[in-house]
Amino acid sequence: MAVGNILLPKLYPVAGISLGTSKAGIKQHDRDDLLVLQMLAGGSCAAVFTQNAFCAAPVEIAKSHLSQQPRWLIINSGNANAGTGKQGLDDAINCCASLAQNVAANEMQVLPFSTGVIGEYLPVAKIQAAIPVAIENLSENNWSAAAHAIMTTDTFAKGASKIIAMNGGNITLTGISKGAGMIQPNMATMLGFIATDANIEADLLQECLQIATDLSFNRITVDGDTSTNDSCVLMASASSKVPEIVKNTDNYNLFLAAIIELCKDLSEAIIRDGEGATKLIRIQVAEALNDAEAVLVAKTIAHSPLVKTAFFACDPNWGRILAAVGRAEITALDITKIGIYLDNVCIVNNGERAHDYTEVAGQAVMDQAEISIVVKLGRGEAIQEVLTCDLSYDYVKINAEYRT
Amino acid sequence: MAVGNILLPKLYPVAGISLGTSKAGIKQHDRDDLLVLQMLAGGSCAAVFTQNAFCAAPVEIAKSHLSQQPRWLIINSGNANAGTGKQGLDDAINCCASLAQNVAANEMQVLPFSTGVIGEYLPVAKIQAAIPVAIENLSENNWSAAAHAIMTTDTFAKGASKIIAMNGGNITLTGISKGAGMIQPNMATMLGFIATDANIEADLLQECLQIATDLSFNRITVDGDTSTNDSCVLMASASSKVPEIVKNTDNYNLFLAAIIELCKDLSEAIIRDGEGATKLIRIQVAEALNDAEAVLVAKTIAHSPLVKTAFFACDPNWGRILAAVGRAEITALDITKIGIYLDNVCIVNNGERAHDYTEVAGQAVMDQAEISIVVKLGRGEAIQEVLTCDLSYDYVKINAEYRT
Repeated sequence: MAVGNILLPKLYPVAGISLGTSKAGIKQHDRDDLLVLQMLAGGSCAAVFTQNAFCAAPVEIAKSHLSQQPRWLIINSGNANAGTGKQGLDDAINCCASLAQNVAANEMQVLPFSTGVIGEYLPVAKIQAAIPVAIENLSENNWSAAAHAIMTTDTFAKGASKIIAMNGGNITLTGISKGAGMIQPNMATMLGFIATDANIEADLLQECLQIATDLSFNRITVDGDTSTNDSCVLMASASSKVPEIVKNTDNYNLFLAAIIELCKDLSEAIIRDGEGATKLIRIQVAEALNDAEAVLVAKTIAHSPLVKTAFFACDPNWGRILAAVGRAEITALDITKIGIYLDNVCIVNNGERAHDYTEVAGQAVMDQAEISIVVKLGRGEAIQEVLTCDLSYDYVKINAEYRT
Repeated sequence: MAVGNILLPKLYPVAGISLGTSKAGIKQHDRDDLLVLQMLAGGSCAAVFTQNAFCAAPVEIAKSHLSQQPRWLIINSGNANAGTGKQGLDDAINCCASLAQNVAANEMQVLPFSTGVIGEYLPVAKIQAAIPVAIENLSENNWSAAAHAIMTTDTFAKGASKIIAMNGGNITLTGISKGAGMIQPNMATMLGFIATDANIEADLLQECLQIATDLSFNRITVDGDTSTNDSCVLMASASSKVPEIVKNTDNYNLFLAAIIELCKDLSEAIIRDGEGATKLIRIQVAEALNDAEAVLVAKTIAHSPLVKTAFFACDPNWGRILAAVGRAEITALDITKIGIYLDNVCIVNNGERAHDYTEVAGQAVMDQAEISIVVKLGRGEAIQEVLTCDLSYDYVKINAEYRT
């Protein structure tokens, strides 16, 4: 199941960006599993990738092609092409080459992406056979089909879209993402593809994407398992009539804020679809010495199986939150200054059970589908938020049966 | 359920150490939940405690009493007396004082220990009422009853015992432990109590205990959640006729080796009883630059919910192990030198799927109840082993229903 609103919102077409999907039959045979994305010439492209040392073959290739003014993306679901060594690299390159050949482009301008099971070789022939149909289908109106084609264990398609009024006209920003398990992105999410018709130079676009992912995709976790394939791409087609976006202008600030908001929407959707999730948990750590410390405490709570199972059970067993804060390896933590809240209910005050805390008040919060944990460390002014979900029977079921 | 041999072995009495149990009725009403341990005058005592910043009230008190030549332990199950602030400290002191009063001792010579739910005040009156019966029952032959009295979510009592032949005679070493969840001890286990009749000075005893716990209790994890109450005590009654054990002698080496082995037995028993465990997983990381790096990689694998659920499903989904190694944040890791094995089956060679790996061979290993994962990093000569268990439906069930 999934938590809260999971309807795919209206995804506005982005001028200069076309998408086409088709059935390669890699793992799913009843739906499209191949996506091709085309950007008109003259745009710019930014991307961030997983920090997992075992990064997948397509990630290696996409990294090496990023500086070649990429205009094409080829994305398959059902197979991650990770842990596949030299053959995996050849397979990823062959997918790029096949697409390039079909559209008379340079293969260096194609970025490949794969998501699915790790350690199996990519069925390249199936993908090659499906490329022409995807190209035939290319259209600016295919964002919804694209969001569906990149799903794996996702239970719903994820996307977000906004139109930003700027000096000189409107800019459109539309993105899709996928991911439900093996989610603790580090520099990027499982897979995210965002496009805009803005006119912006590649280096500045990259800077915007890095700021936004750090505040969104890098602040979510389902199970603490950073994937081998995490990637997030932001393409700007320069098709809008709005003048080029340059740093330290009103338009830049509007643009960056919109990207951050869009990335937060896309990453929150991943947590709502966390494998087996029944609850969305926002963990805010405040009064920290610095951001890193706030994130460390928040992630220690977010990764605690005991905390996660208590939320699944709607059990205000707050001692588990306290224990997680205490093991987060914060130097010279003075527990007598710590406060912990479930929504607005204070459970721990000055490091001990709040004297006016009642189980009834705690239970009322725990019965909700969306809950905030607020931890005040009493050490400084930094504040950070991490999103996670609970740990349910279905998480075990989904991951015990993943390959069967 | 639990994995493998879970029968409590014969626990030899230790001269100079007596144990008595009784029913305080804290959480369980059908079995003893209070344990008193007495050591004759003239012995020495060592202890290690949790590094959790929110360490429980009894841990604080035990730490402060440790230098006062402790001769008495008072241990309750069913309530952790953690997150209870000033009142918790008073409650722990009152338990010590009550015991001391009953046996005409100094309360500073009593170490208190508690295990159970966090955040509820200790029912001191119930404990005080049960102390006289425990004292009446004091006997050197009560190790089995003691092992049962300290259980919480444990499904079996845990103990180990050995007689060591030394220069000058035999030494007996007997210990008990408890723990099944909230298990990633840091300097000690959930609760471990070990006694010997050896004659050894307290500082050297402490050194032995620290070496042993670092190689045993600090190398196990069920769920990564370091408890607020972890404590391990080693008492030496000096009742044996073997001369005092001093450093850098044959007897010292024999003694230390025996303590390490006993601590490993006790900590392995905790993993066999890991909440919901169906598999015992030994994760050995070899060819690491140093011990810390080896432990980091091993624990990253051990804490991966995806790895743990794959083991529960007997699924040789080894890509999850590879992904965990890759996210362990090892600086300058060269994946092309990495090998990964399931028992003797090579699954990853030179950083990619081993060419002769077959699913049949992997499946045969995964069908076992006890499995080794061996990771060779190709960076150095350090080697460390961490024990863990799988993540099953029952883990979620046990922890979602813990307080009901």
